[in-house]
Amino acid sequence: MIGRFKYDNETFYGEVKGNRVIVDRGLYNDTFLLIDLQLLPPVQPSKLICVGLNYKDHARELGMEIPDEPIFFLKPPSAVISPLGKIVYPEMSKHVDYEGELAVIIGKRCKNISRDDAGSVIMGYTCFNDVTARDIQKKDVQWTRSKSFDTFAPLGPYIADPMLDVSNLAIRTSVNGELRQDSSTSNLIFNIPYLIEFISSIMTLERGDIISTGTPAGVGELSVGDEVEVEIENVGLLKNTVVAKN
Amino acid sequence: MIGRFKYDNETFYGEVKGNRVIVDRGLYNDTFLLIDLQLLPPVQPSKLICVGLNYKDHARELGMEIPDEPIFFLKPPSAVISPLGKIVYPEMSKHVDYEGELAVIIGKRCKNISRDDAGSVIMGYTCFNDVTARDIQKKDVQWTRSKSFDTFAPLGPYIADPMLDVSNLAIRTSVNGELRQDSSTSNLIFNIPYLIEFISSIMTLERGDIISTGTPAGVGELSVGDEVEVEIENVGLLKNTVVAKN
Repeated sequence: MIGRFKYDNETFYGEVKGNRVIVDRGLYNDTFLLIDLQLLPPVQPSKLICVGLNYKDHARELGMEIPDEPIFFLKPPSAVISPLGKIVYPEMSKHVDYEGELAVIIGKRCKNISRDDAGSVIMGYTCFNDVTARDIQKKDVQWTRSKSFDTFAPLGPYIADPMLDVSNLAIRTSVNGELRQDSSTSNLIFNIPYLIEFISSIMTLERGDIISTGTPAGVGELSVGDEVEVEIENVGLLKNTVVAKN
Repeated sequence: MIGRFKYDNETFYGEVKGNRVIVDRGLYNDTFLLIDLQLLPPVQPSKLICVGLNYKDHARELGMEIPDEPIFFLKPPSAVISPLGKIVYPEMSKHVDYEGELAVIIGKRCKNISRDDAGSVIMGYTCFNDVTARDIQKKDVQWTRSKSFDTFAPLGPYIADPMLDVSNLAIRTSVNGELRQDSSTSNLIFNIPYLIEFISSIMTLERGDIISTGTPAGVGELSVGDEVEVEIENVGLLKNTVVAKN
């Protein structure tokens, strides 16, 4: 696993091994204690492209038809928080939901990538929580406002290997230790190579951009004080707490 | 008017006076001929926040009720093109529309700005064309894909003074010299101070971010080969041509 860290005003990537972080300095390696470093989001995306309604079990749960093409929306970079950041419950909403998701991190600038070549543009994988003000989403019909609040895009903690087989990974979300979403990436309607082909036929992807692949069945509400965990097999565990508006 | 330019691998801002550009170098000024410089988009936004359905005449034209809160969506930074860039007609669409708009450029990082203080965070104004694949917009219901194609966000040409009174400016869009949109910013439903208060209560705005204020009545179709002009009184003239997919 690779993490992005800050120490002494320097930002760098390092390999996480247990409670240590190994930083490649070229001719030698530096070793830090994980606890001494500030953990940052694994990338600073220029855009976050999120796919809606992309799990068969979630579509069934909503009683909706399976779409023939992916539906996506954007979250602003300003919504990203670090793996240890707090989700701020906005005054504007009375109903905020978690949505645990597997996110793909793009590794290089690219356009018009075929599904067969999709692997070559993946930097790795991480966990994502597509936090959503459900009441505002319903009112607006357009999904943007409800998903764009500051802190509504927890990302991390680390970058899992791009060679990982992501076709059948357990994906679980729990709130205060209670399991709420329990599915597998095998339930994805549009798989990752397809999504990269589709989205890169529309827009140029930049290094560090995020494609989040949608959430499985079991979405539900968060309250101030809750601790929400998104855990994906072999990818990581993203844990954030919900706080009242500052 | 202030423009952003490139010359000899250097990117800089300069004041445009007729056919000359004056660049403040601190102790002295450099003067260039406008024609010798590469014109860039006036900013590189981290996000573009676009307000939908914000002109009374456009709402009437669509037979839609005036919304009680602004509806907005995001366009990705990858869609921005320079004032002289070409709009590429995507293979995925059979119906691409222009939407001429007045854009606000944010001058500094800010959050929770009241409408009374909105002026203090404005860098200036420019023209924007919210190019939209109308057929895809209707199919998806969500507006993001239809507005996110590369080249679908022509921006510029220059930055007009932040002290400009924008409450009643003529805004016109023409295609191949034929007038198609002809309105005034006095028809805005939510004015700029209100939009800045509303949007900055949701998300942190960064220096260079764009808030585009919506399009008036008269939206319509573009074809390959068309020349589309968005002209706003005392703000500028943004002219782009439409080309077939590369």
